[in-house]
Amino acid sequence: MKALVYYGDHDIKYEEKPKPEILKPTDAIVKIVKTTICGTDLGIYKGKNPEITPGRILGHEGIGIIEQVGESVTNFKVGDKVLISCVTSCGSCEYCKKQLYAHCKDGGWILGYMIDGVQAEYTRIPHADNSLYKYPDTIDDDVAVMLSDILPTGHEIGVQYGNVKPGDAIAIVGAGPVGMSVLLTSQFYSPSTIIMVDMDENRLELAKTLGATHTVNSAVENAEEAIKKIAGEEGVDVAIEAVGIPPTWDICQKIVKPGGHLANVGVHGVKVDFEIQKLWIKNLTITTGLVNTNTTPMLLKATATNKLPLESLITHHYKLDQIEEAYQVFLNGAKEKAMKIIIEVN
Amino acid sequence: MKALVYYGDHDIKYEEKPKPEILKPTDAIVKIVKTTICGTDLGIYKGKNPEITPGRILGHEGIGIIEQVGESVTNFKVGDKVLISCVTSCGSCEYCKKQLYAHCKDGGWILGYMIDGVQAEYTRIPHADNSLYKYPDTIDDDVAVMLSDILPTGHEIGVQYGNVKPGDAIAIVGAGPVGMSVLLTSQFYSPSTIIMVDMDENRLELAKTLGATHTVNSAVENAEEAIKKIAGEEGVDVAIEAVGIPPTWDICQKIVKPGGHLANVGVHGVKVDFEIQKLWIKNLTITTGLVNTNTTPMLLKATATNKLPLESLITHHYKLDQIEEAYQVFLNGAKEKAMKIIIEVN
Repeated sequence: MKALVYYGDHDIKYEEKPKPEILKPTDAIVKIVKTTICGTDLGIYKGKNPEITPGRILGHEGIGIIEQVGESVTNFKVGDKVLISCVTSCGSCEYCKKQLYAHCKDGGWILGYMIDGVQAEYTRIPHADNSLYKYPDTIDDDVAVMLSDILPTGHEIGVQYGNVKPGDAIAIVGAGPVGMSVLLTSQFYSPSTIIMVDMDENRLELAKTLGATHTVNSAVENAEEAIKKIAGEEGVDVAIEAVGIPPTWDICQKIVKPGGHLANVGVHGVKVDFEIQKLWIKNLTITTGLVNTNTTPMLLKATATNKLPLESLITHHYKLDQIEEAYQVFLNGAKEKAMKIIIEVN
Repeated sequence: MKALVYYGDHDIKYEEKPKPEILKPTDAIVKIVKTTICGTDLGIYKGKNPEITPGRILGHEGIGIIEQVGESVTNFKVGDKVLISCVTSCGSCEYCKKQLYAHCKDGGWILGYMIDGVQAEYTRIPHADNSLYKYPDTIDDDVAVMLSDILPTGHEIGVQYGNVKPGDAIAIVGAGPVGMSVLLTSQFYSPSTIIMVDMDENRLELAKTLGATHTVNSAVENAEEAIKKIAGEEGVDVAIEAVGIPPTWDICQKIVKPGGHLANVGVHGVKVDFEIQKLWIKNLTITTGLVNTNTTPMLLKATATNKLPLESLITHHYKLDQIEEAYQVFLNGAKEKAMKIIIEVN
């Protein structure tokens, strides 16, 4: 079969690989229909994860058709159409029993990282019963791909951890695919003011059409001042960091009001300064996390009722044999006006 | 009347001051019976708070007798014995309605800071109805003083914000008066393992008698390694910072397991490094805060049933005219084996 394979820093190849086989009774083999590229994949491409074994097939988001199941898989049969969760979970370890699937002792984020992923014609999914989801025909296949990672990430680690409540003023710092997912899912909980912060005007314009009540372009104005002008001198109830770099963390820690929440969603590569000499007194709650995908069933229901304009996040379509080109387009995300790129496989 | 007065860095004087008067109908004048010295007072003495007006009477912990009440005070009458809360709250602003009394728009921590405090023969308490508490005779007066600040601080900002649950493994970093208050109140919620960390062996010995299941002397062993040897390689469910300096913050961020809590209780003077490049993925909850004293009524009930050996925290007694000497003893806390010092006033 064909697959996108990692060999090292800036070294990925689209090439022939052996088709995966069932290794454990809890495995399923999925014939991939559609996949996409995540910001994390770009990080891997840029060499941020030297711990990855050369020869690894990348990718952790996608949908497909069950090709084969291990003998203990009970929830799926050959021919079922499934959503692949970016997080694999056994369902029975200490962390799974707390719905902390991200920290499953025999799973977590392993697809396209510790084991071969889904940017390929076929993939092996461990713990299939707990890591795949059926979805109704009312959900478009392109849209379903948004539920592998970005939508639950925005919802769980941004909105739920941030404790967004009716009437709140919230700021989302970073209008990429995950920031947009925070924007969309925050509206389940009826905040009054949603301020989207980014340096790209196109993304801010899209954010307005998706429900942002205000936008701040941090390339042309002081974000802290602009946000406080909108939300009031004390700041916002919830600040959500959706980039993963020190400057965006810094905006967030400056704009949260007493008793507020700072939900970090971004994947960081370096430490940040925490201004605890000012913030110890502010009764803040700061959260971090990798998505657990424990709200995926809830999000599938909300998506099925057409409450979420997820198709707006999809900007490009490529075939699997064009995936190396698609990586380059996604690398220049803002310039190419790229948000999510659907890779059509089978 | 006599009072302890702040004039600047290392400049406090025990001297004559005018007796306070009712300024607003919601005020009460309290004749102080007992007071004490807080770590925060030492910080003021050391010059950490140059924003304080010279001539300010210090102190925010104590008990006394109502001497006079403003015309709109309804909960108290002359002669009532009262506990003074370190936090003053109006009860009706945005923050008070969320029980965030620490951020009351006409209060918060103002006693002995923005207005004259309680290390004096008399004090004026604004918003008396919401900032004073009656307590039963079954609570010893010395013990009651522990409920002005340290006990609710440990309980609310350490134990409740840290979400201590039955069966948890917790670590308390810092065995001063507030750390000991965390230790005592954590036991309401039945954690299985309570690891007390400090550099002073006397304080660790006291912690053992107050319920610590393990102690770690961070002056003689690597705290992270010692704690993980006790709690397991993944760390503790809850780490509570009760000092307020970068090294103790650092211990805490290294010992929390995935899905765990880090409750910062310490008052910090400088920023800290937050190792978010390692911790973004750990699904942590980090909290900060000044005490709200919203659990003071609960703690008074628990103390009245003699469930808390608070008398163990009281190591010294002085008269008001010896308060300058008492400050020096408290400054050398560990060496003098000093924990809480009761100042007898009237």
